[in-house]
Amino acid sequence: MKAEIVAVGTEILVGDIVNTNAQFLSRELFALGIDMYYQTVAGDNPSRLSEAIRLAFSRADLVIFSGGLGPTDDDLTKETVAAFFDVPLLFHEEIFAEIKSYLKGPCPESNKKQAMIPQGAIVLHNSRGTAPGVILEAQGKIAVLLPGPPRELLPMFTEQVVPYLRSKSDASMYARTLRLFGIGEARLGEELSDLMENANPSLAPYAKDNEVTLRIAAKAGTEQEAKALIHDMEQKVMKRVGAFVYGYDEQDMKTTVAGLLMEKQLTIACAESCTAGLLTAALGSVPGVSAVLSESVVTYSNEAKMKYLGVSEKTLAAHGAVSEETAAEMACGIRKAAGADIGVSVTGIAGPDGGTAEKPVGLVYVGVCYRGHVTVTKLRLKGERDKVRSAAVMHALAAVRRRILDIE
Amino acid sequence: MKAEIVAVGTEILVGDIVNTNAQFLSRELFALGIDMYYQTVAGDNPSRLSEAIRLAFSRADLVIFSGGLGPTDDDLTKETVAAFFDVPLLFHEEIFAEIKSYLKGPCPESNKKQAMIPQGAIVLHNSRGTAPGVILEAQGKIAVLLPGPPRELLPMFTEQVVPYLRSKSDASMYARTLRLFGIGEARLGEELSDLMENANPSLAPYAKDNEVTLRIAAKAGTEQEAKALIHDMEQKVMKRVGAFVYGYDEQDMKTTVAGLLMEKQLTIACAESCTAGLLTAALGSVPGVSAVLSESVVTYSNEAKMKYLGVSEKTLAAHGAVSEETAAEMACGIRKAAGADIGVSVTGIAGPDGGTAEKPVGLVYVGVCYRGHVTVTKLRLKGERDKVRSAAVMHALAAVRRRILDIE
Repeated sequence: MKAEIVAVGTEILVGDIVNTNAQFLSRELFALGIDMYYQTVAGDNPSRLSEAIRLAFSRADLVIFSGGLGPTDDDLTKETVAAFFDVPLLFHEEIFAEIKSYLKGPCPESNKKQAMIPQGAIVLHNSRGTAPGVILEAQGKIAVLLPGPPRELLPMFTEQVVPYLRSKSDASMYARTLRLFGIGEARLGEELSDLMENANPSLAPYAKDNEVTLRIAAKAGTEQEAKALIHDMEQKVMKRVGAFVYGYDEQDMKTTVAGLLMEKQLTIACAESCTAGLLTAALGSVPGVSAVLSESVVTYSNEAKMKYLGVSEKTLAAHGAVSEETAAEMACGIRKAAGADIGVSVTGIAGPDGGTAEKPVGLVYVGVCYRGHVTVTKLRLKGERDKVRSAAVMHALAAVRRRILDIE
Repeated sequence: MKAEIVAVGTEILVGDIVNTNAQFLSRELFALGIDMYYQTVAGDNPSRLSEAIRLAFSRADLVIFSGGLGPTDDDLTKETVAAFFDVPLLFHEEIFAEIKSYLKGPCPESNKKQAMIPQGAIVLHNSRGTAPGVILEAQGKIAVLLPGPPRELLPMFTEQVVPYLRSKSDASMYARTLRLFGIGEARLGEELSDLMENANPSLAPYAKDNEVTLRIAAKAGTEQEAKALIHDMEQKVMKRVGAFVYGYDEQDMKTTVAGLLMEKQLTIACAESCTAGLLTAALGSVPGVSAVLSESVVTYSNEAKMKYLGVSEKTLAAHGAVSEETAAEMACGIRKAAGADIGVSVTGIAGPDGGTAEKPVGLVYVGVCYRGHVTVTKLRLKGERDKVRSAAVMHALAAVRRRILDIE
């Protein structure tokens, strides 16, 4: 079964809202093993909407519409789809009763429009709004019409459309995403180029900020078979690039590192210069992290580095604030000041100003002091201030992970 | 001129990412006075992408593509658009040098693909990634190809494509965005309901995270006329809701506050509990801020609050860490410790755990110590952990702004 999504609404075309429904529906259809090749957005205009409907059904068996089911005159989806299939709209007494009961107060005449249902269609009940959804099977095609507001669309799809679609489909689709750090999309593609030609399971690399994800997706007759296919492919992938894989699915770097700290009951404290709190805030976004993180300091100035971290004036004078030596003293200084198991430091030049030929923008040192010794990583980061800062945080977290797991 | 957007990427079709680029581009085109009737998403498949290109150019004069400009084999946008117009791709030595210089380290062979440019095309330089953009004029149509990552696409469009499109258009469309804090979208709509019926200039409110923006857009024969229309409307808006306006266009709250501090040469230091560095990092994202921000501390634990900030054990015992009294002592404590002009503190319950009936999740106190006295704001914030944290940062920055400008 091939599917498409058609979002209806001028508010999307003028950029008033982000089409998050499309993402939700895409994920759901993918999980159901239903292929989708195109998505379209059309405005509240009858002729252009007709054209979008014609086009979608010329390419797909199943078209899911979102939006345009409201009570006003510019809500046209139901009327236009019914006209396309030449199916009359009939007033549905029961549905009108549901709408009236939902509204509780007076029911405007315009809501009657919402109780008009294409003949022979399955009605999707809406407990969160006035617009019922519709499933219409006609001419060998399936049209699913859903209300636009996500709080109405999401539960209606999950509760009523998914069971319907499962009953129509005979395959199971599953996916697993590997998260990699320290390898670029280009090199990952080269390492896996032969495997990437495989159709089932398929491999899809994707470059995100400071990391790359690799999705392994498989389709099979049963969930078990699909998962076995994924497992085999994952083994092959891990043999080649396993050293870069740090997490799976929703488990990002900060969650991974905070999880490790909590699991191993290791306390941590950060001394940040160019990242100015971003590293601590990243760990701080993970619920429960305060069990292992009780303090951190941001030290932009040399004075602050001496005062809070005990960095020596001599080191700063001889090597500068952005140096391996200062990073090492910062990491050990915060570990000691906080009485923590791990001290981590970041010092560098985030730009746009402050760079020199010897110490250019993007030069960052990350120090990790743990178990009596300190390791410092020298980084040459690319991009603008915010990119340098966020990449530095990622590298600092990765360095902490390596030290905890004793990987080098 | 009629426009369409074609987003290219299987990651959108399978729901891995939300197509926020489409919203950004929609707003920008709308602001330029360029009509758009359709948007499409297509996957990384050559024949289906070809079909999407053919269709888009059959309906529109200008098609903006996002994504598919990466170095791997499944990045096909440039190749497919060039083939559609029958234009050869030529290796561009200078662009390859730019890519190599961006990468700094070794440049994989596959990046050469990114230096292949359609003959006669305008190159859009990318200072934030390896993929150059392209503007190709052919057969009376315009194709604009942009890289998929928003941090690359947004500035490339604003800095390089907008001036190009303006030069192609005969009407002048200009817009100015007011940024408001402390008022909701619904109330803003009510205050301005009569003005919002105006077509030119038009008003478009938009709710963002923790703030509301109001875009005033005008179309006229000349830039000067358009700007005069905007100016008049802005006066009317300011009379009604000026008290909530804190900034314009790209000037967000952190930039506004950092700018005020730098302009007035006021130094600041932060003491953060539940925001765990996020407030300092927000200020730290503004270039040059280290002139006024030399240190901050993150103090989750009571011990850290006493050690770094001199919060008294008695206060903590009597009122707890999340209290007006503790917030006040934290703000004055960090001001004193840092020898800064302004001390700002945040202490609260970000959740999901740690809330009680008396002190629920979302309860946050913000303290500002300045000119010999401290003010504390009590907040009841809604939403999940990250939402509470980011809203707390916004409120803390707003509180600092009010104190500096002596507004209450």
